Amino acid sequence: MAVAVTPEDIREASRIIHGQVVRTPLIAAPKLSELCGADIWIKYENLQFTNSFKVRGALVKLLSLDAAARRQGVIAVSAGNHAQAVAYHAARLQIPATIVMPETTPFVKVANTEALGATVVLSGATIAEARSRVQKLAAEKSLTMVHPFDDPLIIAGQGTVGLELLEDQPDLDAIVIPVGGGGLIAGTAIAAKAIRPDVDIFGVEVDSYCSMYDAMAKRKGKYGGQTLAEGIAVKAAGTLTRPVVEKLVTEILLVPESAIERAIYVLLTQQKTMAEGAGAAGLAAVVENRARFEGRKVCIVLTGGNIDGRILASIMVRGLERDNKIVSLRITIADQPGVLGQIATTLGKSGANILEVSHRRLLLDVPAKGATLDVLIETKDASHAEEVISDMRKKGFDVHRLDAEGAGEIGTR
Amino acid sequence: MAVAVTPEDIREASRIIHGQVVRTPLIAAPKLSELCGADIWIKYENLQFTNSFKVRGALVKLLSLDAAARRQGVIAVSAGNHAQAVAYHAARLQIPATIVMPETTPFVKVANTEALGATVVLSGATIAEARSRVQKLAAEKSLTMVHPFDDPLIIAGQGTVGLELLEDQPDLDAIVIPVGGGGLIAGTAIAAKAIRPDVDIFGVEVDSYCSMYDAMAKRKGKYGGQTLAEGIAVKAAGTLTRPVVEKLVTEILLVPESAIERAIYVLLTQQKTMAEGAGAAGLAAVVENRARFEGRKVCIVLTGGNIDGRILASIMVRGLERDNKIVSLRITIADQPGVLGQIATTLGKSGANILEVSHRRLLLDVPAKGATLDVLIETKDASHAEEVISDMRKKGFDVHRLDAEGAGEIGTR
Repeated sequence: MAVAVTPEDIREASRIIHGQVVRTPLIAAPKLSELCGADIWIKYENLQFTNSFKVRGALVKLLSLDAAARRQGVIAVSAGNHAQAVAYHAARLQIPATIVMPETTPFVKVANTEALGATVVLSGATIAEARSRVQKLAAEKSLTMVHPFDDPLIIAGQGTVGLELLEDQPDLDAIVIPVGGGGLIAGTAIAAKAIRPDVDIFGVEVDSYCSMYDAMAKRKGKYGGQTLAEGIAVKAAGTLTRPVVEKLVTEILLVPESAIERAIYVLLTQQKTMAEGAGAAGLAAVVENRARFEGRKVCIVLTGGNIDGRILASIMVRGLERDNKIVSLRITIADQPGVLGQIATTLGKSGANILEVSHRRLLLDVPAKGATLDVLIETKDASHAEEVISDMRKKGFDVHRLDAEGAGEIGTR
Repeated sequence: MAVAVTPEDIREASRIIHGQVVRTPLIAAPKLSELCGADIWIKYENLQFTNSFKVRGALVKLLSLDAAARRQGVIAVSAGNHAQAVAYHAARLQIPATIVMPETTPFVKVANTEALGATVVLSGATIAEARSRVQKLAAEKSLTMVHPFDDPLIIAGQGTVGLELLEDQPDLDAIVIPVGGGGLIAGTAIAAKAIRPDVDIFGVEVDSYCSMYDAMAKRKGKYGGQTLAEGIAVKAAGTLTRPVVEKLVTEILLVPESAIERAIYVLLTQQKTMAEGAGAAGLAAVVENRARFEGRKVCIVLTGGNIDGRILASIMVRGLERDNKIVSLRITIADQPGVLGQIATTLGKSGANILEVSHRRLLLDVPAKGATLDVLIETKDASHAEEVISDMRKKGFDVHRLDAEGAGEIGTR
């Protein structure tokens, strides 16, 4: 199949959506540059309306419809950013929108999409089942299908990211883009390579959903499982996007789940911005493949910021544990009055702040007249944590760290 | 005292620092607009180098020094954003920088400033004591003092924010700016009012440090205590900035601590950006003073994003509790086998996810043969939390919420 989208299509898309989506900033990130040994710039698509790049393609598609098609309405399958994007611009343009989500979709995602004015239909156990249902609904009600990636208008819309990148920083050496179905990377590559044929385009997939990577290698794999990067957890690369990626993309990089979690934490604490798992995949790939990027001027597209609050809180706490700012200790003690006071005093003198204490006397691995005390403390860093433990041991307490393995692993990064 | 800074000084500052600081974006925030009933735009100074606006003034000051003064070096008193800003640009310009911090400064702040290449001197129990020490050090070593706000060059540098705001969105009705010593608001007001005399400039202070508010009312107050907004916890308004604020600022708004905490949470979860307490004060003021801003086009300057990771994690969890996404239940049970299983099954059927269980049998307020079970669960929202509790009661369990008061308060917002 020939490339269905031209650079001129993308310039036209850019003119069409001008003023109706956010011209997101591309900003230097000196702390990340230091971390990666490269000149890192971030494209903040998480500051886009609905907090993801998806509005670009969706808007181009919606604006292409004639009056009759607009009156009939549109339909899309998505529980995530594509749903939000279609719902947002359909409401603005007074086009009725139906969004089909799997029955298992978390309530909050349904509510968020309904709040934007769309009708949500829950159908099927998975996205694939929901997709088969959508064809029927679309035909029955003469609705226009808005595909998340396999549509030339969607690809042209997402490609406006590429135009903006090189308009802002014409001398980028590399652009790093998370890959789900491939709409963003295909559009961006078409736009960017037309302007700068020597710019390297890197795609990123989470290793458990490496469908584009496998498609490039002409093989098929099995994909599945839980991932923080649900926005790019796509089991089959797009039909229109795949040949574009094959022709224009330098390499698809795979990142493990742990690198994505770490990248979310680093973006939040160092760069002060919130990325969803898919949005952080670009930074994860640069960190994991340092040699490919060292010394180069690299743009990481932060594609979206829609992450669940509970998952974010958990990532924050786990990050603090890895950074030795929260440390969990188990202390075996004689079960007699005054011991807790001695421990608390010793910890206080070492500068450790006690967050939680739990006292167990029924465990089998302590003497019958003993007990264990689990203490969660705040420390400054790895060396302070060691100092605190050493001070406790000097006072005769039998202490060991409950989180020692995890902490060690990260202490080296 | 006459106004020491002119609009032309600020235009000159803007030319001087061009390309050496981030031209931060001003972006529409539709979700916050809906929350506030106004057209809200955010100026993202947390994406600035060192993650605060302070680099603007510091750079103007440093660039004003002649070769001899640069060789001697500079000195500043700050444990926060001003320290980072001076250290960052001094290192770039190869000017030796000494930063004086109180002895009680958290280790991480010392380390962050040293990492930027500055020499940190710990002196005095408070910022005020550190400040008295700095005069002596500056004189001894012929160092140039870089004041955080009471310097015309610093005010001119911070004022470049005002130029950028009206360049990007000339039809703003109001600009909302957190006030510490007053450098940012004075500079921004001078720049903005010269271009648009009818634009309203609002200042924001945390109510426990309302020194500029009191100065406007010609009275003195006592300020102190812990605040999330440490960046604006200043006990005395600047000598140069006060008359500017008096002449050009529409009103100083005071916000309580709780509104600042809520604003940090909203910026993170809705706007996907991380604000420190002082940085979130502007949004807090707009939320708390809805009538003043309703229907108007309002710019909130998000001045900085440097918040401690542990404080952020705690704000996230507290926010989830307020939003009824985490609920704490106490259940009084007969202390017999199988009861926990029944409870877990009932909670599971209601769609509540169990996070933590703790079992107490020694409390005096339960029957001698009974026990209490404290259960932390995840729920979808307030109505789901009520449903879960009602399901438990229908099964005969004696349940009450441990966090009921807090949750009720926020459920109404």
